Amino acid sequence: MGIRVDLNCDMGESFGNYKIGMDEDIVQYISSANIACGFHASDPLVMEKTIGLCRQAGVAPGAHPGFPDLVGFGRRQMKVTMPELRAMIIYQVGALKAFAEAEGLSLQHVKPHGAMYNMAGKDPQMADAICEGIASVDPELILLGLSGSAFEGAAARAGLRFAREVFADRAYEEDGSLVARGKDGAMITDEQEAIRRVIHMVKDHKVTAITGKEIAVSPDSICLHGDSPKALLFAKTIREELTREGIEIAPIAQVIG
Amino acid sequence: MGIRVDLNCDMGESFGNYKIGMDEDIVQYISSANIACGFHASDPLVMEKTIGLCRQAGVAPGAHPGFPDLVGFGRRQMKVTMPELRAMIIYQVGALKAFAEAEGLSLQHVKPHGAMYNMAGKDPQMADAICEGIASVDPELILLGLSGSAFEGAAARAGLRFAREVFADRAYEEDGSLVARGKDGAMITDEQEAIRRVIHMVKDHKVTAITGKEIAVSPDSICLHGDSPKALLFAKTIREELTREGIEIAPIAQVIG
Amino acid sequence: MGIRVDLNCDMGESFGNYKIGMDEDIVQYISSANIACGFHASDPLVMEKTIGLCRQAGVAPGAHPGFPDLVGFGRRQMKVTMPELRAMIIYQVGALKAFAEAEGLSLQHVKPHGAMYNMAGKDPQMADAICEGIASVDPELILLGLSGSAFEGAAARAGLRFAREVFADRAYEEDGSLVARGKDGAMITDEQEAIRRVIHMVKDHKVTAITGKEIAVSPDSICLHGDSPKALLFAKTIREELTREGIEIAPIAQVIG
Amino acid sequence: MGIRVDLNCDMGESFGNYKIGMDEDIVQYISSANIACGFHASDPLVMEKTIGLCRQAGVAPGAHPGFPDLVGFGRRQMKVTMPELRAMIIYQVGALKAFAEAEGLSLQHVKPHGAMYNMAGKDPQMADAICEGIASVDPELILLGLSGSAFEGAAARAGLRFAREVFADRAYEEDGSLVARGKDGAMITDEQEAIRRVIHMVKDHKVTAITGKEIAVSPDSICLHGDSPKALLFAKTIREELTREGIEIAPIAQVIG
Repeated sequence: MGIRVDLNCDMGESFGNYKIGMDEDIVQYISSANIACGFHASDPLVMEKTIGLCRQAGVAPGAHPGFPDLVGFGRRQMKVTMPELRAMIIYQVGALKAFAEAEGLSLQHVKPHGAMYNMAGKDPQMADAICEGIASVDPELILLGLSGSAFEGAAARAGLRFAREVFADRAYEEDGSLVARGKDGAMITDEQEAIRRVIHMVKDHKVTAITGKEIAVSPDSICLHGDSPKALLFAKTIREELTREGIEIAPIAQVIG
Repeated sequence: MGIRVDLNCDMGESFGNYKIGMDEDIVQYISSANIACGFHASDPLVMEKTIGLCRQAGVAPGAHPGFPDLVGFGRRQMKVTMPELRAMIIYQVGALKAFAEAEGLSLQHVKPHGAMYNMAGKDPQMADAICEGIASVDPELILLGLSGSAFEGAAARAGLRFAREVFADRAYEEDGSLVARGKDGAMITDEQEAIRRVIHMVKDHKVTAITGKEIAVSPDSICLHGDSPKALLFAKTIREELTREGIEIAPIAQVIG
Repeated sequence: MGIRVDLNCDMGESFGNYKIGMDEDIVQYISSANIACGFHASDPLVMEKTIGLCRQAGVAPGAHPGFPDLVGFGRRQMKVTMPELRAMIIYQVGALKAFAEAEGLSLQHVKPHGAMYNMAGKDPQMADAICEGIASVDPELILLGLSGSAFEGAAARAGLRFAREVFADRAYEEDGSLVARGKDGAMITDEQEAIRRVIHMVKDHKVTAITGKEIAVSPDSICLHGDSPKALLFAKTIREELTREGIEIAPIAQVIG
Repeated sequence: MGIRVDLNCDMGESFGNYKIGMDEDIVQYISSANIACGFHASDPLVMEKTIGLCRQAGVAPGAHPGFPDLVGFGRRQMKVTMPELRAMIIYQVGALKAFAEAEGLSLQHVKPHGAMYNMAGKDPQMADAICEGIASVDPELILLGLSGSAFEGAAARAGLRFAREVFADRAYEEDGSLVARGKDGAMITDEQEAIRRVIHMVKDHKVTAITGKEIAVSPDSICLHGDSPKALLFAKTIREELTREGIEIAPIAQVIG
């Protein structure tokens, strides 16, 4: 069997009369979708429609739960208790699961959103609460999170499979964490370089850190964006380049077996 | 086998810092609970706790979905489209189902709340949208609705089992509908009379309409309230009186077989 | 003094991360802005920014209160009580007034939004509740509403000035009401015709109803849209054509004196 | 002129069908009310009703703005930007101001709520954003905040008058800050001791810190609670004891002149 990697993207973040993203387009290039669940974005109709898009395109659906902060799009840090966090995961994942099953699909994974993703990635207690919530809905669900983050240990403790996510457009520190956005060189702006880095990560399990040192990384999934024509073009290109390199694009569940 | 009837009550309608109802008490007297799902009342922590109360008391949990109107407690009519209505049912039932399953319980039934219950009870299109939503989450779920309302036909069309609900404290018109609240004699205020009427309905399948004529009724479930010490006492009394009459109190699923 | 008319447009309907409308552009062509107040759309930052746009462009700001239904964009009918309706007007108008005054501006008018506009336009009780709410915030505020609707009488009863609004892109019945959207010929799709009709209304106080009969109309303000490049172009064109006809574009307060 | 002090209490924190607090009772004992504005609690009808209670009782109304977190009752920390914070103050204070003026009252003060109060009390940037928001609505509004907190400097920088608030039921550190709730001795549970401490603070401008050392304090207002019969009784008692000591109970504006 050859090398496989998943391409994931956030989807279903429109809300009522408000439209965000180019879901109908990006769904053509990815293998797994992170679908908003109504707390930071989305509503019941958008969730139903997005599950429908996944079914038509053969993309594996996952839940993308966030903080209950619509006006802040789930990007503002909120200090919640662990029972609150676990319960808000159960609620959101359960709601999306019902839409998936209504269309004859199974949920594949869960990827926390925004501030919840960032906070819990560094906070084992929060990561544990999230994983307990996921496991209590369905222990077969895969947690998709930042490679090397607090999510890895938490998934193991909760008995969940974990999929490592990497970013094509971000630089890495020597310890495998992302270079903070403010810092020089944090963003990989050259698309060809971004694609070369991704291929290196997927094929050789290595990436050059911002210090110049090569570090180990084992990506199961690459995070893409679908919010602009340029992002769509990048998704198309990276898919073609990976395929040309003999790398198979497949949903997370097939990548991590 | 003897006569059985279910006692149902709305539960889990607290929200954040706000407390409504006396759930810990009423749960002792009922056999089925209608649990709010976060749209007209409740939040993820309250839902989790309420499912826990049901598990401890051996009460069958059901979903109590409502309109997305927290400040109006789901009691204000909203004109929603049928796809919106179906999707808001899937969302809410799915969310509660996840909490039930996390505690090792299955959802037994769905009873729409407030204005949604009243509007759809007279509107076959709305009743159909609700039933389609329920059936797409789980066709084994029972719809609990007003005896003789538009819910009966809709449940049949969607292939759902239907449980007929009657009210101990409300008078009936000759056609089996409830006497409108404004009218003289609409409320049965004498508790002994209310209990006699319920026993007559359950044992003899008859009730005296406001006109004096006896009409047919086949109650599967009696709706109780749990919002005051007086309501609790009534629940306790009706349970005792039904038992004394040899009527078994059992969850809906056992009543309708 | 020559003929004057106001051009009004809804603005400030973005929300958090969600953008709607082309406010920076449309503000160049209008004389009065109807600014959303956080119930059907908008948030505090958007309100502040929109007031800023009005100040820069010399456009008179007004409040555009709606039902508390963000996911439905205030377009779904809600059955609210009259005290609720009056209070939700005071709340929203008060909030926007604070942003206007913080920028050194005065609110000029109030125009209800969406389902509230449509329902109250035919329901004198609702129109009264809205006008009482407005008058209790500031009796100098002008009510902007559909010419010939229930708003006219309600404004008079509450002691508010009323500004009559007409639509360039809608056909009229003989009684001055709008032809329902579903009907043949309800929309005026030819832009030149739309402009001719507006000029006829403004200069001659007449419009040809859908039956062919000329009816009387006294427009103080013309409602424009700012949600697409085509709508912007129409706004620019109608402004130019009105100006060419010697009609002065001025805020409502100057039109109705 | 004798010694004066204000008694303040949070009010109007009910929401829709949910009731919190015993507003009709506590309003009899206080001189200033901090009224919720719809973000952490309350709704337009509750705000209107609470202003009415203040008018009847001759209590000075103030705004009690909080984070937009109804389910968390504004008690959860949220990381918001300074422009967001300033705008959410303008919105909430503006909305309440409209209700006050509709009843012929002026808003007297603003006291931030919950997590916003606690965070900004230690964060000069947040305190500045809050004060700028208040000053842009009305520079005559008084800021009511913890004595010795970051609010003092911020009020001065924004040109607002500041009223120092003390707590009858809390112990103080030597630096004048409150002893953290978790610590031994943080709460003053003996009512007679609490009252003695308050009288000492008001008459002698001194309080015994938890270390035993006497420290300086200049209270303008004492924060009371109105959420239980016991809290009401305490309010009644402290009012009587202060009066017996010749201390006049008066709204903040009269205390700080």
